[in-house]
Amino acid sequence: MNLTVGWVQQAMTGDAETNMQNITDGVRAAAKSGARLVVLPELHRTHYFCQTENPALFDLSEPVPGPTCDALGSVAAECSVVIVGSVFERRMPGVYHNTAVVLECDGTLAGIYRKTHIPDDPGYYEKFYFTPGDGPLYPVETSVGRLGVLVCWDQWYPEAARLMALAGADILLYPTAIGWDEADSADEKKRQFDAWQTIQRSHAIANGLPLVAVNRCGIETAPDSVGGIRFWGGSFAAGCQGELLASAGEEPDTGLVEIDLSGVERVRRIWPFLRDRRIDLYKKLTARLAI
Amino acid sequence: MNLTVGWVQQAMTGDAETNMQNITDGVRAAAKSGARLVVLPELHRTHYFCQTENPALFDLSEPVPGPTCDALGSVAAECSVVIVGSVFERRMPGVYHNTAVVLECDGTLAGIYRKTHIPDDPGYYEKFYFTPGDGPLYPVETSVGRLGVLVCWDQWYPEAARLMALAGADILLYPTAIGWDEADSADEKKRQFDAWQTIQRSHAIANGLPLVAVNRCGIETAPDSVGGIRFWGGSFAAGCQGELLASAGEEPDTGLVEIDLSGVERVRRIWPFLRDRRIDLYKKLTARLAI
Repeated sequence: MNLTVGWVQQAMTGDAETNMQNITDGVRAAAKSGARLVVLPELHRTHYFCQTENPALFDLSEPVPGPTCDALGSVAAECSVVIVGSVFERRMPGVYHNTAVVLECDGTLAGIYRKTHIPDDPGYYEKFYFTPGDGPLYPVETSVGRLGVLVCWDQWYPEAARLMALAGADILLYPTAIGWDEADSADEKKRQFDAWQTIQRSHAIANGLPLVAVNRCGIETAPDSVGGIRFWGGSFAAGCQGELLASAGEEPDTGLVEIDLSGVERVRRIWPFLRDRRIDLYKKLTARLAI
Repeated sequence: MNLTVGWVQQAMTGDAETNMQNITDGVRAAAKSGARLVVLPELHRTHYFCQTENPALFDLSEPVPGPTCDALGSVAAECSVVIVGSVFERRMPGVYHNTAVVLECDGTLAGIYRKTHIPDDPGYYEKFYFTPGDGPLYPVETSVGRLGVLVCWDQWYPEAARLMALAGADILLYPTAIGWDEADSADEKKRQFDAWQTIQRSHAIANGLPLVAVNRCGIETAPDSVGGIRFWGGSFAAGCQGELLASAGEEPDTGLVEIDLSGVERVRRIWPFLRDRRIDLYKKLTARLAI
């Protein structure tokens, strides 16, 4: 029960049409190589606009379904692949989301997921732009399986991966936009990249699920010309024991990886973690503190 | 705010007195080298007796406090170190626990933790011997900090580490007994070891806490002479970003590591994961399934 998954790791330009052209070219290339599911980076239509807080940038938002969904649906149908894309969603005036969209291989919208955990860090001012998703965390049913789609900052939360697993996900998928502050030391950069990969591999381990994380790459300067982000690429896939199956470097990369979906059943038999969860003792997980 | 932590990674013999002698010698050596906290492997008084289900082996259990607590308290006071040890606890006839005991540096019992998640695998028949701990998961207050003591199988559960963090732990500690089945392939062994280290590093990352895991080493044959376990050692310490600070190989090892406890505050400021937990959406974590 192998599933060939592709990713399109791209550097984004300031021009949305160019970006969408690169992305759809990547989808076509992955599909031609045999991918039945293609995962795109977070917010792939534009530069990562959250480096500054600017009300005018809500103009970049669009409805779901809308133009980006249509464009992705069109290439999904053309190539007969399932696509996990990403949209800056305008849900109503004043309510905008960071939304993953899943296009079925016939081009229809199979489902969406609105980013649950919203970061706010210097250079990643997402709390200004994105209303947190209102849940529940639930996989999207598609012809290639139940896709546990989460987005970027969600990847730091074991809770999110666990909820997707408990809801029957066959695979975890993380469209992402993460990079380095060039002012950080080489050691700090290494710790950050390692932590990012390690915690996602741990979700595969804890839940006995394969996982694919897809990041953008390239350097994007901040609008105020101070700082900027060097997106680290590093898109990767892990198997159900957290083992690294494939990974990209810092350059644009249309990756392809074979994922054995039957590993879920096999690994959960030898690592029966879900059997032994102490749900009688987990109530405080829904509290801010347990002191 | 550095804390020097020692571990005593030992191969256990069939003789309890020899084991306790080796362990107390190790504590003395670690203390002499500057350790203020020494962590021991799980069930360090005996062979890992859970390779078979034998009612007579409940004879190995003892009360807490009791002889092992006394012996550890004695060496803790002698060396003026805090010790995290492990006891097969007889709580009442028919109720036995896999219990971590924390001895203060004056030799008194600071607190205990009863293993919450109990495994049951071929060769690890723990559900026969150990009643699951009845919680709550709470750190033990000591002169060297609030110790988030968990035990072995707990290490596969992000929930356990999270609960300790939310309850104010300063550090996560995992006495452990884990090893390879020699019948497994080299690849499978590598996946198991990597997963074991990776998921624990991920608890450090998710919670911004340092972590020390201490395993036994050596080969112990099964009582029925079929199979047996090659305990893989590999005791290690990780910092608050999950970075590996020190690690042991497969041989007996009295390790020493400097842990910067102020890293908790520093790292949680740059990685504010606890701020963004969506406790409004976590209710299903207390369910068996979320379907």
